[in-house]
Amino acid sequence: MRKISEKISAILPSATIEISDRAKRMKEEGIDIISLSIGEPDFDTPEHITEACIEALLGGKTHYAPSAGINELRSAISEKVSTENGIPATSDDILVSCGAKNSIYEAMEAVLNPGDEVIVLDPAWVSYEPSVQIAGGRAIHHPLNRKTFQVDDSVLEKVSSETRMIVFNTPSNPTGSVMDRESLRLIQDISLDNDIIAMSDEIYEKLIYGKEHISIASMDGMAERTITINGFSKAYAMTGWRIGYTVAPPDILRQMIKVQQHTISHPTTFAMWGAVAAIEGDQTCVEDMRQEFENRRDYVISALSDMGYETAPAEGAFYAFVHVGGDDVEVAKTWLNDGHVAAIPGSAFYAPGWLRLSYAADLLTLKEAMRRISEL
Amino acid sequence: MRKISEKISAILPSATIEISDRAKRMKEEGIDIISLSIGEPDFDTPEHITEACIEALLGGKTHYAPSAGINELRSAISEKVSTENGIPATSDDILVSCGAKNSIYEAMEAVLNPGDEVIVLDPAWVSYEPSVQIAGGRAIHHPLNRKTFQVDDSVLEKVSSETRMIVFNTPSNPTGSVMDRESLRLIQDISLDNDIIAMSDEIYEKLIYGKEHISIASMDGMAERTITINGFSKAYAMTGWRIGYTVAPPDILRQMIKVQQHTISHPTTFAMWGAVAAIEGDQTCVEDMRQEFENRRDYVISALSDMGYETAPAEGAFYAFVHVGGDDVEVAKTWLNDGHVAAIPGSAFYAPGWLRLSYAADLLTLKEAMRRISEL
Repeated sequence: MRKISEKISAILPSATIEISDRAKRMKEEGIDIISLSIGEPDFDTPEHITEACIEALLGGKTHYAPSAGINELRSAISEKVSTENGIPATSDDILVSCGAKNSIYEAMEAVLNPGDEVIVLDPAWVSYEPSVQIAGGRAIHHPLNRKTFQVDDSVLEKVSSETRMIVFNTPSNPTGSVMDRESLRLIQDISLDNDIIAMSDEIYEKLIYGKEHISIASMDGMAERTITINGFSKAYAMTGWRIGYTVAPPDILRQMIKVQQHTISHPTTFAMWGAVAAIEGDQTCVEDMRQEFENRRDYVISALSDMGYETAPAEGAFYAFVHVGGDDVEVAKTWLNDGHVAAIPGSAFYAPGWLRLSYAADLLTLKEAMRRISEL
Repeated sequence: MRKISEKISAILPSATIEISDRAKRMKEEGIDIISLSIGEPDFDTPEHITEACIEALLGGKTHYAPSAGINELRSAISEKVSTENGIPATSDDILVSCGAKNSIYEAMEAVLNPGDEVIVLDPAWVSYEPSVQIAGGRAIHHPLNRKTFQVDDSVLEKVSSETRMIVFNTPSNPTGSVMDRESLRLIQDISLDNDIIAMSDEIYEKLIYGKEHISIASMDGMAERTITINGFSKAYAMTGWRIGYTVAPPDILRQMIKVQQHTISHPTTFAMWGAVAAIEGDQTCVEDMRQEFENRRDYVISALSDMGYETAPAEGAFYAFVHVGGDDVEVAKTWLNDGHVAAIPGSAFYAPGWLRLSYAADLLTLKEAMRRISEL
């Protein structure tokens, strides 16, 4: 066998794939599967955003763009993060990339040296650890409290002289929970005391139900040590557009831009024009979708609770994180085989014993799914 | 100063930037600069391709796509490379990425282990070495013969036990020259004898003037040891779309897909539908643009020759590679400051003493540029 990259070979295929593949095969066999495994809004992109993209296409915006993104978008984003998130930023502090995932990878590459450690708060999104690995670092997992899903002092045990970064997602995929100010204060203290960079993934920021979203970069001393990740996929139903962004201190952003220049050039030019329309246009579409997700959240969490299931605090994103106990992969298989409902095993998120159910589906579908689960 | 990635910090900012920045500043000051420094077609994307993208947008193709690219595009590409390039491939052998540059990076990441060597044939495109560096490898430069710009036996001196890959671009950016069959046979021999992977960057394949384009993967024994890189940017004037692709053996492609899954997810969904229209639609637009580039090539090369300049064989792409001797960066500054013509110093491509002139500009502009150069 030919020698190829040991680093990449060591990255496991996503643990979500087995269930998704099985669900897909069953669908192809004509079985009526309800898929609650997807991580994207079920809405199409709002029309005014699509229209702006079409206008860009017709206007010949099909050529190369500046590698950090078009100025109009960087400027609109800097205005947004300054006013909404309290993060001091100008256009020069913004890098537009090919989705938030791409931003995360570029940030890992810009910061990490071989063997550097990144603390990942579990349950964690599936691509944090692989992006650390690709950049040559090591992910150090720390489990959040399984009742509150907030940070406590125990995370300090994971800090070593090799720790460069701590990464977290609020609101969280997969749990739906939102970091409160106390948790963020703890991370702030750890960051300041140990010169650790905070990577705050805020992609679900706009999908939040009755809680306050706090950007850690707005807290004292944190702007110069935070990499804020965000994007358009979840708030504006723009997953396929691949437009994300980073707000980061200049020494880090400069290196990220170099990575971007040599790995992707820049995101799709006309898609960036759609993103300008999203951020500058009427935000009613965002609130409409948020409200719809909140209605679904209310229904699903109460249905699961009626069945006796314990769930993580469902305060944001569009996931119910359900405690099923035991072997979650087996439970997911049973739900799929006997109940014809596809959900993702918590093991994929370093949280065995749980399942992630997406409620990015219409209420009728969700009701039928709950009926099936209750009959299992 | 905070510790950040030494590997990324060591990557030099592009040597093309100083001249481009200066040209931009002069333009902003109202000086009538002719820019022959750009590396993209001056045409807009053909209408039927843009229309297909608009149709995709209006049809709700704004959601996540499979991480290796939409099946329709992978299938159309496999058909194209099988019939046009003689590369045996099915859909499963194709990975669609965010531009050919992204494909190159992912391939480096999939193959290289720390310290592995990649032979780069100079003059070379600017991102080969950085992509090797980001993946943790080392670029070993080998100069091509400066008359023929073909490969000869001397490249064997660069092969070591650490050599994993040899990378080249035909037709070439920056020289415009095209690899002949003898050169490719030499690379084939080296590859077979030393178990070295050939990375053949064929992005300028369709812009070729009276020479035959040969894909090394079509040669005996090479399909299983070649990574073929191509894309839509140059043939279809789709630079801003960011759609490139790779044909590679399964062991390598499998690792590339993992890199893609965790760094970009996939290229923009509706842009991939434009690419389907490009590859499946009428190819007259490609030939029309090729013909126009050939006319410009004829004019520019003959004008430069009349001025006494020696150029590399201009057989493809849209560059004249001009021997100016001495300090090419200084010559480029003189051309810019005194002639108001922007060109890229050959040093940026590891070829001091040369300048790269792009003829992706209309004939009137090119004539004025030649007039200015002749007056220097």
